[in-house]
Amino acid sequence: MFVLGIDPGLTRTGYGVVAAERGSVRAIAAGVVRTDTAAPIADRLAELHRDLATVVRDHAPSQVAIEQVFVNQNRRTAISVARASGVALLVAGQAGLPVTEYTPSAVKMALVGYGNADKQQVQRVIAMRLGIDAAPKPADAADALAVALCHLQASHLHRLLERAP
Amino acid sequence: MFVLGIDPGLTRTGYGVVAAERGSVRAIAAGVVRTDTAAPIADRLAELHRDLATVVRDHAPSQVAIEQVFVNQNRRTAISVARASGVALLVAGQAGLPVTEYTPSAVKMALVGYGNADKQQVQRVIAMRLGIDAAPKPADAADALAVALCHLQASHLHRLLERAP
Repeated sequence: MFVLGIDPGLTRTGYGVVAAERGSVRAIAAGVVRTDTAAPIADRLAELHRDLATVVRDHAPSQVAIEQVFVNQNRRTAISVARASGVALLVAGQAGLPVTEYTPSAVKMALVGYGNADKQQVQRVIAMRLGIDAAPKPADAADALAVALCHLQASHLHRLLERAP
Repeated sequence: MFVLGIDPGLTRTGYGVVAAERGSVRAIAAGVVRTDTAAPIADRLAELHRDLATVVRDHAPSQVAIEQVFVNQNRRTAISVARASGVALLVAGQAGLPVTEYTPSAVKMALVGYGNADKQQVQRVIAMRLGIDAAPKPADAADALAVALCHLQASHLHRLLERAP
């Protein structure tokens, strides 16, 4: 199973692709899509759409996991993130891929075991799970991998529960 | 000048096209794009994108005006509207069209003269400006025409100011 994780934002959108095969998990790709802060918002969203569609085409994930808009952000930021996440959802929808959204605290809970884990703890767990020395930088790429790992874990639990007598 | 006005929403997005030629303004089209409330959000955004892109293709506007996310909505609604408006902005960006956003109160101010005008007053002004008996229904289509008219008026003032000595 190839999962594309996305941490959406208008200026920087992190993405990370993880593959789960025969019980092992590895990172296939991780990076950040940036848009030109000096450009009009419509052009920035078009740029984001084009770049995320390229990521989907290049890595052919079978599922998409997106970090949900953080509820305690200020309203202007929340609206900007919501627009970027709308474009990320759209790209998945246009590719016919199933999407699941996870709140930032659900991601931390799944990876570290509690919802208030700090960035460093999350990054250590990402590196450990993927068998790499350190989580990739910038943070948005690592956050995207975290959402993808959270989804793998949730899907795994879901399958176990379905099989349970 | 053909202006496409959009009043974005995930369930219903109103659109209206107005044409300003030789000092007269008329409505070319007005309607509502609906998405299936039972479908996953990614599919709904893909449906909205497809339908709005069709409106742009069919009516070939030269400019787009979008009603901004209302600041006093509850957060869940605001995020849902922000995603729909992100898709509307994207469609304009992909078509290479300039976009301007207007707050609901700016639209009322431009049309009726004050920002707290009620729906009925706005609808009467829309009908009057477009020389029709009544504003079209549903309200989302009328709201979209209102944003388009607001943009025409703002562009007209803008041109007058630029010409002023």
